[in-house]
Amino acid sequence: MKINTWFGVLETNTAGEILESRLLPKNIREIALNSLSLRDSRLNLPPEGFDLKAAALKSGFVESPAEYYSILHEVALEAAKLQVSGALTPDQRIIQAVEALDDINETSNALSERLSEWYGGYFPEIGLSGEDLALFIIKYGSRENVGPEDPLYSKASTSMGAKLEPADEALLKGFAENVRGLYERRRQLEAYIENSMELVAPNLKLIAGPMLGARLISLAGSLEKLAEFPSSTIQVIGANKALFKHLRARAPSPKHGIIYNHPLINTAPWWVRGKIARAVASKISLAARMDFYSRGIDPSIAEKLEAKVSQIRALNPTPSLKRQEIEAKPKKRRRR
Amino acid sequence: MKINTWFGVLETNTAGEILESRLLPKNIREIALNSLSLRDSRLNLPPEGFDLKAAALKSGFVESPAEYYSILHEVALEAAKLQVSGALTPDQRIIQAVEALDDINETSNALSERLSEWYGGYFPEIGLSGEDLALFIIKYGSRENVGPEDPLYSKASTSMGAKLEPADEALLKGFAENVRGLYERRRQLEAYIENSMELVAPNLKLIAGPMLGARLISLAGSLEKLAEFPSSTIQVIGANKALFKHLRARAPSPKHGIIYNHPLINTAPWWVRGKIARAVASKISLAARMDFYSRGIDPSIAEKLEAKVSQIRALNPTPSLKRQEIEAKPKKRRRR
Repeated sequence: MKINTWFGVLETNTAGEILESRLLPKNIREIALNSLSLRDSRLNLPPEGFDLKAAALKSGFVESPAEYYSILHEVALEAAKLQVSGALTPDQRIIQAVEALDDINETSNALSERLSEWYGGYFPEIGLSGEDLALFIIKYGSRENVGPEDPLYSKASTSMGAKLEPADEALLKGFAENVRGLYERRRQLEAYIENSMELVAPNLKLIAGPMLGARLISLAGSLEKLAEFPSSTIQVIGANKALFKHLRARAPSPKHGIIYNHPLINTAPWWVRGKIARAVASKISLAARMDFYSRGIDPSIAEKLEAKVSQIRALNPTPSLKRQEIEAKPKKRRRR
Repeated sequence: MKINTWFGVLETNTAGEILESRLLPKNIREIALNSLSLRDSRLNLPPEGFDLKAAALKSGFVESPAEYYSILHEVALEAAKLQVSGALTPDQRIIQAVEALDDINETSNALSERLSEWYGGYFPEIGLSGEDLALFIIKYGSRENVGPEDPLYSKASTSMGAKLEPADEALLKGFAENVRGLYERRRQLEAYIENSMELVAPNLKLIAGPMLGARLISLAGSLEKLAEFPSSTIQVIGANKALFKHLRARAPSPKHGIIYNHPLINTAPWWVRGKIARAVASKISLAARMDFYSRGIDPSIAEKLEAKVSQIRALNPTPSLKRQEIEAKPKKRRRR
């Protein structure tokens, strides 16, 4: 009988005596790799009650039980390392990209504002902001360099702004270069997230859109967790503050968390947003489950969602009286 | 008699009748520039009671009082624009650089942290952070590219980190490039501030150091305001929270604001920090006044400050009993 062990292959007779052995060289990494492949194949594993340590001693792989345990320990450590260092799962990589994107958004906004304020002293009439402003500054620096062919020429030549000294111009150009770089990174991250979502969660991407889908995975922690959430949880993910206020005090339950960003919800009239949010959350949950378990794309989910939303809107053309009263309460009770 | 007016030069006789006139062309900008130069030279201004409007009509510059006022209005506007658009004062430019530097510091820290966390999944043993980490990632990307000549080679080859996919490597390299750019901008801004401080406030730079000096100007609003502050105010600039708590409630007065960053203060034992802060603030005030009013450099201020600080430390080798008691109170009462 052939038995695969972590230190080599043994041939035994029916009584369990070792007839022949092909031992692995004592290379920890090689043994670890071999043992991981054994675990995956599950072929010819030792029968129950088989004494591996005795076999290792008998076949001459080790000379003492102490050596056996010492090598086993090192192999186990190495195998653990090898396992950990497999590639991260695609949804974890999406989460990292989403978090990086959030940081980039925040910083590019902060630095854009600073750039607007700073350059505003030199050309207050410019009327550009964000990346456009950064590109203008990189191109021209001082407004004196704006040529007649530029639509901003007349503004630039009659501006009330101060004169820009060369040293400050160099600073501003460098700063604008940073801002431009951050906007470029934003686009790169968004493209990455969109591509990855197409591969990892095509149904979720179809229903929620790539960015909202990625944010849902990020807030849930993984696609698996998102697929396990009931749709009522998906409906309020991201509304933690309102949800805990609801659980703790007598505040109304939140109608929607970050799925509020879904175009079907944020373009709907206020009195049907709760109903539509429930429908969207239910289809998102379905899509996440399909993505996690089966990997097929089903465009009918999106069609059904749209039909459902049309139905909700048709059945509720105006706010009902009861709901009107609730919504008319002071702002404190407004939900998010 | 020659009279310079905003619309041209008039020759009058002693009775005030116009003999000859050299009128300016009706170009608003030119007239405005001329009137600003007149204001600076103050030569041959019209005598008191001279009727400019009548003279303008008589000399044929305008044809009606309405036209006179309309042109005057436009010229005044244009002159105001021209005045505003003079260069900003050097201390205002330092303030802008300080504010930009604060934003850059904050963003580069935030993005560095994100980079550490993100890359940590792929090479947790790296032990680099900030700009060093960014440079490493730009150079190598995946730890698989680290060559044997690099001191991190052995760590990289035995790392427990995950495998880095090419798409993620591109993202990380781009992100690291942003981080590197922000650190570069930080250095550029610091160099600018140091140079400008040498020109604008050499005494302040000598006493407080370039960055602390620039921050003091920034918090005061201008070098002029800093020069006008009493030294007791300079001592607590930047400790607004503690100061208002002191004024409102029974909290102790703050011992120091941002001047705490001065090496003479933050290396001193706690029981003399208040005294030393007072001495430093007084010399900073003196230096700011010298810079604002006279522009000479006086190295003796620094020498006197050091002598004073040595004296304070010599006279207070150990905490006095009374002060020990105050300082021993619960943390709430600790001052800043």
